[in-house]
Amino acid sequence: MTHLLHEIANVGRAADGSYHRLAWDDATMTLRAWFARTAQSRAMRLEEDGNGNQIAWLECAGVVDAPALLLGSHLDSVPGGGAFDGPLGITSAFAALDRLRERGAPLTRPVGVANFADEEGGRFGVACLGSRLATGSLPPSAARELTDDDGATLAQILQSRGLDPQAMGPAAWVPRVAMFVELHIEQGRYLVDADAPVGVASAIWPHARHRIEFLGEGNHAGTTPISVRHDPMIPLAALVISARDAAAEAEARATVGKVSVSPGSANAIASRVEAWLDVRAPDDATLSAMADRIVAQVTCSSEAEGVEVCVVRESSTPAVVFDETLRDRMANLLDAPVIPTAAGHDAGVLAAHVPTGMLFVRNPTGVSHAPGEWASDADIEAGVDALVRVIKELT
Amino acid sequence: MTHLLHEIANVGRAADGSYHRLAWDDATMTLRAWFARTAQSRAMRLEEDGNGNQIAWLECAGVVDAPALLLGSHLDSVPGGGAFDGPLGITSAFAALDRLRERGAPLTRPVGVANFADEEGGRFGVACLGSRLATGSLPPSAARELTDDDGATLAQILQSRGLDPQAMGPAAWVPRVAMFVELHIEQGRYLVDADAPVGVASAIWPHARHRIEFLGEGNHAGTTPISVRHDPMIPLAALVISARDAAAEAEARATVGKVSVSPGSANAIASRVEAWLDVRAPDDATLSAMADRIVAQVTCSSEAEGVEVCVVRESSTPAVVFDETLRDRMANLLDAPVIPTAAGHDAGVLAAHVPTGMLFVRNPTGVSHAPGEWASDADIEAGVDALVRVIKELT
Repeated sequence: MTHLLHEIANVGRAADGSYHRLAWDDATMTLRAWFARTAQSRAMRLEEDGNGNQIAWLECAGVVDAPALLLGSHLDSVPGGGAFDGPLGITSAFAALDRLRERGAPLTRPVGVANFADEEGGRFGVACLGSRLATGSLPPSAARELTDDDGATLAQILQSRGLDPQAMGPAAWVPRVAMFVELHIEQGRYLVDADAPVGVASAIWPHARHRIEFLGEGNHAGTTPISVRHDPMIPLAALVISARDAAAEAEARATVGKVSVSPGSANAIASRVEAWLDVRAPDDATLSAMADRIVAQVTCSSEAEGVEVCVVRESSTPAVVFDETLRDRMANLLDAPVIPTAAGHDAGVLAAHVPTGMLFVRNPTGVSHAPGEWASDADIEAGVDALVRVIKELT
Repeated sequence: MTHLLHEIANVGRAADGSYHRLAWDDATMTLRAWFARTAQSRAMRLEEDGNGNQIAWLECAGVVDAPALLLGSHLDSVPGGGAFDGPLGITSAFAALDRLRERGAPLTRPVGVANFADEEGGRFGVACLGSRLATGSLPPSAARELTDDDGATLAQILQSRGLDPQAMGPAAWVPRVAMFVELHIEQGRYLVDADAPVGVASAIWPHARHRIEFLGEGNHAGTTPISVRHDPMIPLAALVISARDAAAEAEARATVGKVSVSPGSANAIASRVEAWLDVRAPDDATLSAMADRIVAQVTCSSEAEGVEVCVVRESSTPAVVFDETLRDRMANLLDAPVIPTAAGHDAGVLAAHVPTGMLFVRNPTGVSHAPGEWASDADIEAGVDALVRVIKELT
């Protein structure tokens, strides 16, 4: 782990080694302060937009108005996530700029390091909130009303952290950016198979997230015969199984990883179950066919049980193919394999607005969104090296 | 609703009309104080044992040492329960004694009204904690170490409420009791079908509760192919379906009403799922055959998914057949139907120690452990009348 990753290794870390850094919680506030200090100690100009995105700018005299190169990633995690997903992109960008500065290499354009707010969507259900708002792909009015599990709106949370919710929306820095390159820990094992420490992203799979609510009838677990029950756990089970079957058949992904059962008593039939379905596929057609099939099976199982079902698509992100020129330029420069990913990133949001590319750093475990995600010091170093060469190539 | 039920109608009541009165929470503490006041205003002697059970004694001069008749029930609820399950037995007992006092009817033995602590087991996972401890059917050492969902032990919780956990265990009042009669709202529709306001219990089905823990592997919902997952949600789905199928076939009950999914992120495969399985059947053999079948299927599904499974039987209560003499005496006296129940009660625990009977009051909805449970004022009145006649018969 590099010294910058070390500095934040204990923030939001639970006893089992997992990280809990949800947007705007105490841990991410500590990380925001760390980011600001890190920028200031390097004499980088700190910009914060109305969406909570932070950018540390390195602007050499004479090139301040040139179209900028943006680097960076995010500092929030999923609940129970790992140390690298997000932070590695930010610490590697700072480290790469440190190295260039040591060498005295001149920059022909401003270079920024971004910390995007709420990339994981672990708190308000929508991933990449910061980058979506900054680029105008999510209206601030909709974002302000998003609620967390405690029923607090994003607007309330921002206010409680001293930000003005009315300042949310398209950010002034976006039109300044000519290119965005995000470095990220790999969330699979393509690079293990390719025996390469660093890879270049080709595309991000399309992705959608559905919230599915099952409304049954609470009753006594002992006295209520099976035949008269309206148990919302039954269609939940159907959801889990049909998601798995549909994804296996489509060589895609479908996951139920978040569930809430009410009232949650061992001796009462549940009255209400809420479940989240995450779906991803190599292309948009496969994705919607798979989601439709799962929803149809769940609806059928709910009807058979006399349970009301309500499906809300909370987010939907079409396939992203990264800028081919930038991709080929980086792949040739680094002699790195080109690999796809099924994970969403702020780079996927930015790609609709500016030429965007991604670098991945090898993760021997392939594990992601869990404490097992990992990169060796040598591979982290290779990632920083790659960023150094990319910055030199692009500035 | 009688005036005594009215007095506590707002305690622990949520906006949707459901009740949240978990053992030793603020609502049940308010109810304990109400119970003490209600006893004192009737000049009844209040006894509290080391397990948190409260008994209000009516002891006429000259008969203080005679074997006692115990009435009563409990004031706690399941999370999201109804207004009648428990409280009806206590308020009806007070009301019946009020009526006898108005009539000046002499009592030939002490009569107690009990408020048993933690009947529902909604907090520490073991039902009828108060009566089990008082009768010696649960060792205090085991009870002290039980933990709630926040990880607090029963001993810590008792201490925080000013009780001494070392005082738990067999209670002095138990040997004094000659008979116990618990009045309860019916948790089914036998009395609706029989067109009778009050019934007499024949037996309680045997009952067991299992905590099942599935340990899988947390990972990224997008990047992890289905074939390499170890997703604990899959055996959870198998548990829900096999519980239902086994119970339907055995004409018994099996319910999964409480589930906890960790870390609970929409875009991560769960690493751990905890689920509670509640099983009940007309007889002990059917119960264990059904539970064995469910556990075997769940184990098989877990193995196929590469998920570790651990099954802990948290509680087990054999079938209870109530004292036949007392049952027939009450049924003849009241001309009431004799009906079974699949719900557990403190009466089921007391039955192993003293002649015990139960009266049920008609519940037109048949709903229980949910806000829909209900009894008409006329039927509540009929229940009080029945208690008056039973007390006169037995004292």
